[in-house]
Amino acid sequence: MIAGGGDYPVQLARILAGRGERPFIAALDGAADPEAFGGDADIRRYRLGQLGSLLDELRQRQIVDIVMLGALPRPSFGALRPEMSTLKYLPHFAKAFQGGDDHLLRGVVSFFEQQGFRVHGPAQIAPELTAPSGPVGRRQPSATQRELLEHGFSLLKALSPFDVGQAAILADHRVVAIEAAEGTDAMIQRVADLVAGGRLKIGKGDGVLVKLPKTGQDLRVDMPAIGPDTLRNIAAAGLAGIGLRAGEVLVGDRAALGRLADQLGLFVEGVA
Amino acid sequence: MIAGGGDYPVQLARILAGRGERPFIAALDGAADPEAFGGDADIRRYRLGQLGSLLDELRQRQIVDIVMLGALPRPSFGALRPEMSTLKYLPHFAKAFQGGDDHLLRGVVSFFEQQGFRVHGPAQIAPELTAPSGPVGRRQPSATQRELLEHGFSLLKALSPFDVGQAAILADHRVVAIEAAEGTDAMIQRVADLVAGGRLKIGKGDGVLVKLPKTGQDLRVDMPAIGPDTLRNIAAAGLAGIGLRAGEVLVGDRAALGRLADQLGLFVEGVA
Repeated sequence: MIAGGGDYPVQLARILAGRGERPFIAALDGAADPEAFGGDADIRRYRLGQLGSLLDELRQRQIVDIVMLGALPRPSFGALRPEMSTLKYLPHFAKAFQGGDDHLLRGVVSFFEQQGFRVHGPAQIAPELTAPSGPVGRRQPSATQRELLEHGFSLLKALSPFDVGQAAILADHRVVAIEAAEGTDAMIQRVADLVAGGRLKIGKGDGVLVKLPKTGQDLRVDMPAIGPDTLRNIAAAGLAGIGLRAGEVLVGDRAALGRLADQLGLFVEGVA
Repeated sequence: MIAGGGDYPVQLARILAGRGERPFIAALDGAADPEAFGGDADIRRYRLGQLGSLLDELRQRQIVDIVMLGALPRPSFGALRPEMSTLKYLPHFAKAFQGGDDHLLRGVVSFFEQQGFRVHGPAQIAPELTAPSGPVGRRQPSATQRELLEHGFSLLKALSPFDVGQAAILADHRVVAIEAAEGTDAMIQRVADLVAGGRLKIGKGDGVLVKLPKTGQDLRVDMPAIGPDTLRNIAAAGLAGIGLRAGEVLVGDRAALGRLADQLGLFVEGVA
């Protein structure tokens, strides 16, 4: 596992441990917290510029199957500080850096594939980390809320050919926010600000967040995700719940998320 | 003319004066500035609660043709303080208030039509207030910028069935912001903030704003508009120009806006 930041890599390691597997974890410096994986994890830290060393280690261990998971701030090509054994790979990445995040991620996947590795998605290895089909927690959307979720999914589908729109917020039978470059959390905050400023009214039980991958998004390395903070943010914004495409959005520990949803009075629904 | 805030009602009055016409202007309290129309304007101030008096005045003057123009903060039904002669009209508006802005505006138009008036759009009376087909100012979009504009127009068209998406910002071959409830200015500010925070890079000459009405939007009372502040905001955000649907977006004084666009190094293009 090539691990970035956040809780998902740790959760995946825990799930694998439960199956009696002990993955080799390459913790990316500045993103992953090696301590979080516990004392007995088989873990090593790597800077992005130490790609050569990482490949050597993987080959020595005869590792072929890899999964990349966790948040990683977009690195600066200039700040890579590559070690000698990494220099020869730079031309591949120089190209990948000339484009959006999607382009960069595709470049990373194609690199490992060209080097003979198989890149797996976290959902393939641990589907229990993704939204189920049905509720996470006790609450379920009402018929009206379900309609609003469907309207939101249709909207995001219409946006997909434009390579935009992983998430949207709907309330009062209309679309009140659409995510583009700002990210989901900033979009939720915007709606909270509009409500706080009196420019938008959201009735109790009315507002919903919808989230799903864009068509063609590589779910092996770029899966949409929500977590406890997403729930806290939408509760603070006065929304009623979240609709997610089942199996295609990371939710992490379903039981813990369900408990939090119950506490906050929210529904979190996976829609098949 | 039932006049709200901003410069457009004043500009329309000036255009009509140039044609030798002197409209009766009902300046809405708290929105329109009666002083801005000059000393010899035929003007009266009305609170929204004085609808009865306004109708009496219009009938006494045998006025049948009306145009409504200018910004009006969404009024609160409870704060109307209706005069006696207005009370009988309240049931109509109580209904109109139970919905979004579009619904309220349709209710206002249908009210005046039921009372025997003809409601005209500002573009019908003064097409020179709208975006022309072609450039406003000297600059014109490059072939690459034109492609980005077309991509943006396609995006907004795809959004239109969802009754959202009057404007979007595109840069680097992708959509970076889509307007929903926050309004155009807030969307531009968001992009400026993403750029300032280093989360989004926009190359010189790369970013564009597109704006057009939603399908089915009643252009008589709800026309999208840009103005000098829009130009200043997009220049501050590092964008290169604006694409507008010709004839369907208010730009006000074209010559003045063109001079400002030239000063700021922006293109403002009306696309037929």
